[in-house]
Order: sequence, then structure tokens, then C-alpha cells
Amino acid sequence: MTNPVVVEVTRGGRVESMHRGSAVVMDGGGKTLFSIGSVDAPVFPRSAVKAMQALPLVESGAADALGFGDRELALACASHSGEPAHADLAGTMLAAAGRDETSLECGCHWPMDQAAMIALAKTGAEPTQLHNNCSGKHAGFICTACHLGISHDGYVNYDHAIQGMIRDTMASLTGEHLGVDNCGTDGCSIPTYAVPLTSLAHGFARMITGSGLEPVRAKAAKRLVNACMAEPFYVAGTKRTCTRLMKTMPGRIFAKTGAEGVFCAALPEEGIAIAVKCEDGTKRAVDAMVAALVARFLTAGDDMRETLMAQANRTLKNWNGIEVGTIRVTDALS
Amino acid sequence: MTNPVVVEVTRGGRVESMHRGSAVVMDGGGKTLFSIGSVDAPVFPRSAVKAMQALPLVESGAADALGFGDRELALACASHSGEPAHADLAGTMLAAAGRDETSLECGCHWPMDQAAMIALAKTGAEPTQLHNNCSGKHAGFICTACHLGISHDGYVNYDHAIQGMIRDTMASLTGEHLGVDNCGTDGCSIPTYAVPLTSLAHGFARMITGSGLEPVRAKAAKRLVNACMAEPFYVAGTKRTCTRLMKTMPGRIFAKTGAEGVFCAALPEEGIAIAVKCEDGTKRAVDAMVAALVARFLTAGDDMRETLMAQANRTLKNWNGIEVGTIRVTDALS
Repeated sequence: MTNPVVVEVTRGGRVESMHRGSAVVMDGGGKTLFSIGSVDAPVFPRSAVKAMQALPLVESGAADALGFGDRELALACASHSGEPAHADLAGTMLAAAGRDETSLECGCHWPMDQAAMIALAKTGAEPTQLHNNCSGKHAGFICTACHLGISHDGYVNYDHAIQGMIRDTMASLTGEHLGVDNCGTDGCSIPTYAVPLTSLAHGFARMITGSGLEPVRAKAAKRLVNACMAEPFYVAGTKRTCTRLMKTMPGRIFAKTGAEGVFCAALPEEGIAIAVKCEDGTKRAVDAMVAALVARFLTAGDDMRETLMAQANRTLKNWNGIEVGTIRVTDALS
Repeated sequence: MTNPVVVEVTRGGRVESMHRGSAVVMDGGGKTLFSIGSVDAPVFPRSAVKAMQALPLVESGAADALGFGDRELALACASHSGEPAHADLAGTMLAAAGRDETSLECGCHWPMDQAAMIALAKTGAEPTQLHNNCSGKHAGFICTACHLGISHDGYVNYDHAIQGMIRDTMASLTGEHLGVDNCGTDGCSIPTYAVPLTSLAHGFARMITGSGLEPVRAKAAKRLVNACMAEPFYVAGTKRTCTRLMKTMPGRIFAKTGAEGVFCAALPEEGIAIAVKCEDGTKRAVDAMVAALVARFLTAGDDMRETLMAQANRTLKNWNGIEVGTIRVTDALS
């Protein structure tokens, strides 16, 4: 199946570039409410499933034992911008388990957000692993291992107990087989497993509704989702899409981006979840796709619909602030 | 026409993302040697045609009057990285015409290259318009206006004499109508005109072969192309694709990228030019496309074919340096 064009980028009134993609909306019972493109083709969810990967941190009792609140749990689900508050909190989480930055195995990179990168460079400092956008997630893995009395050495590897716990958790939530045959290595070195968008949407719908989940998991899932919605800055950062969406609709949306054009979102009030993939991996496209799909599934009189469509269809300006074009979703989505 | 998949990005042995695009290879006589996808659909060439836009600087006599050599001419054709040598030379060009950075109308942005951005931030300085990747091109416009005794105020506007000269030059080279109806505004505020890839490839093939050009234009075109090939650092910068290609094959290739997935290249020895567009505007895709197409049109025993295919099909590593996947061109190109 050829994925439909879902987002167009215009200049001078013409389509300059276009993005193809797939998207699905499901409820906790596994009913498909909307579907477009190859939603049954396996995709690597990358960072879009960090909230699923953080479940063992809560279910194991580690989060409670270490006194983690909403901010720490949000950071454990985050692809953060490497702003000072993010890096500092990742360090604080590690310190709670008696560890520090040297225990991280995510690798080091400059903050991915340009403003955060420039701000750090201006201080004269170099980035550490704490600035890696995944440092909160990795701190959560290390804290879980420490709480369970497992060595955290090599916690990023497929065969480590932490990754086994994550694999079991995600297989249960998504109903998919996760193994070496559908495994790739993520940017932060942990395994990522290719599964259909339908299974990702169903998994997140179950996380917000508790549908078919054991009480411990249902409670942990709700706690993580609520933590992200309560502390959206710690899930991403200043001017980031996930943060903006969760600030736009406080308590009404959970939103998490992943690399290569994946995005998962969930609407607790509506009991539905969205999973999208832009086939070319472009961020600007999935940001527009998710905003348009969320708007579509709000009730007719909801004020947020207009706000979201203004995020989906927006003007592009050049370096002089002159309007040069637009990004807009196609009829396939709106 | 649905453009074919031309580049795949893999992870864990699976295709994670894919890019569709169009490409054409032509000679100076207008013969099509290779074609794939919608090559007759108008595309905005953006910065890929800066060497065409620099022709009035040479043809007017401004370049000679101001003593510009290969470096200045290369910078006039550049989308540079904003490294100190780039910004300094743009300032020197303006000074030759008795002007300075305040005459530029391109706008200001941090160097687009991450390393250059970090290096500038570490100095504590803020970027100026000289760091704009188009500052050399704009300095060339201002120098041309000064040499011709025209006010350079508003030189970025469609109705300014400088843009009229560029429009006439490009219309003649490409054989296309350029006007308000196919005009958009570029990132640096000058007009950009949507024309078919075939016309772009034909135009560059004429620039390197002189086919059908008046002697003055043929000489100016050769001088600009030779300047870029002689000073590839000034066309882009450290680790940039255009610079790398021209350093890989000294004197044998002219290469120029443009925003939104456009790329033009020309092989003077073979007398052919290449124009490509990735429909989703992604840089990684066109970089691979161009390397593969150049390799395809080199003679069978050419050592460079293997070198170029290693640039087209390359390994992706994560933050820890672990191989996680590949970028590769599809059979449609290779």
C-alpha cells in the first residue's frame, strides 16, 4: 500500500514538499476509530513508547522507594531538550539510587534543541550524558535495577533483566511478539521493537483506560500518564511539541514524540489513543498530523479544536519574519 | 505520477523510513540521459541555483573591478556554514564595495552547521547577517549594484533591477518563463521560481559546456563553476556535502545543495548535469541520490565510483558509536 499524502508544505501558493504517512486511532477495547495508510506494517516506535518503558520503574516499587514524584516520572518518560532543569533532575534521580552520570549508558550529545544547545555552549561547558535526551529514562532503568538489587551494568543490552522486563511489559500492552527478530538498536543503545501502529495505539488506549490490565499495571500506567500531563516541561522542554500539546489541553492529552516520524498521543477523557508514522521520518509532518487528529476526535463544541488546527495548519516565516509559505494537513486527515 | 522510493533508511535490518523523489540527468544539448519521477513538475530550486544567480556579478564586470578571485566567487555561489572564514570573507566583499553588514537584507541566523554554531556560541558572540548562509550571495548582489551605480536598497525585492537581471539570466539558461506566477520567497527573502528539474539540469549542463550561450555568459559560467571547484570550502564548509563531493573529485564535479531536498550537480568532463528533488525535502536523501547518480555516470573503470557509492550507501551510528542501521539508495537509482 502506498501511504497517502498527509501533510503539504507550500511556498508561493504551490506545494513545495509533501509528506506521506499512516495513522490510527483506537479505543481501549481495540476498536479502530480511524485509520489511514499502512497501519499494520511494523514500525519502530523509538521514543514514543517511553511511558511504556517506564512502567517497571513504578511497578517494581522503585519510584516509591526513591520518593519520585510527577517530575521524576515525567522525566523518565521524556525525550528532553537538555535544558539545565532536565539535566539536573536526571542527576538527582541517579543520586537517589546512589549513582551518578557515569552509570548512564545512553551516550553523550549536545542538547537537541537549538536554544538549549547555544545556552550550554555559552556557559563554556561541554555536554555530559545527563544532556542526552534519554537521560531521564536511563536514570529510571538504573534506579529500577538498584531497587531490585540487580547490577545495572549493561542495562541497555537485550539480555539484561531490565530490558527483559520492558519487553514483557510492552508485549503484554501491545499484544505483540517482541524478540530478536523485530528488534533494532535505538539512538540511546537500548532495544526498540518494530510493531504495527494499531498495536501502539491500542497499548496507549489501554494505559489510559486500564482496559484488560492487572490492577497494579493499570494504576502504574495512570500514574505515569498523569505525571507527564502534570509536568509537561519535563517530558520535552521549552517550545517543544509534546510540551505545547500538554500545556494547550491540561490534563486532557498525553503526547509523546519519537524519532523518525513516530508520535503517540492519548486522550483520557475520550478513552482513545493515536499512533502516527510519517514514512519519511520528518518531525514537522507528524506534529501537524497529531494536532489535526486530536482536533478531529474532540467533541464538536470544544474550543480546543480551533487551537489545535492552528497548530496543524501554520504559516512559515523566513529569517526576516516574512511569510513565505504554510504547513497544512491534507483532506486525508482534516 | 507517484514518485518512486529512491532512498531507504534501515534499522535492525528493516526499512524504518523511506524517501521518494525525482531526478534527471541531461547534457548541454538538452538530451535526457536519465530520468525518474516527476521531472517535469515545477520545483523551487532554492539555493541550488546560486551559481546562476551569481552570473550578473561576473558578467557586469563587478567581480573584476573589485578584484574578486575564486574564493569570493565561490562564496557568492555558497550556502555556507557560517564558519569564521565565511563570515569574514562576506564582510571583505562588502568592504570592497564600500559597504558593510548593515547593507545585507538576508536576515540573521545562527550558523546552520552545528559545530559552527557551537563554536560561535562559545566565543560569547551573537550571529550577524554575515553568518547567514546566503551572505556571500547577497554581498555579490550588493557589489553588482554598486558597480552598476544602482541603489542596492531593496535588492531582495522582485521589482529591483538586480532581481530582474537574475530573472532574465535564469530564464535564458533554463528556457523557462520566470514571473510572479511561479515565484515564491526564499529563506533569505529573494524571489525563487518554480521550474522543472529538466530545465535546471539543462541550465547547468549549458553552464559547464557553454552550449548555446553567448561568449560572455559562457565565460562567466565557466569562471563561476571553476571557482567553486577550486575553493569548495567556500561553497559550503567543514564536513558539508557540497564541499566533500568537490574535494572527493577535484575539478571534476560542481555540486550545490538547496533547501527542501533540491540538489544540482554538474560533471564538466562528461558534459552532463544532474538535478534532483526529494519530495519530502529531506537532505539525507538527496545527498545519497546525488552520490549514486554521479557514480552511475562515471566511466566503468573510474576509481571514484566506489568512493561515491560509499557516500550513497552508508552506515548509521548512534550516540555510543554503535552501528544501528544504514542509508541506502534503491535499485531505482543504483
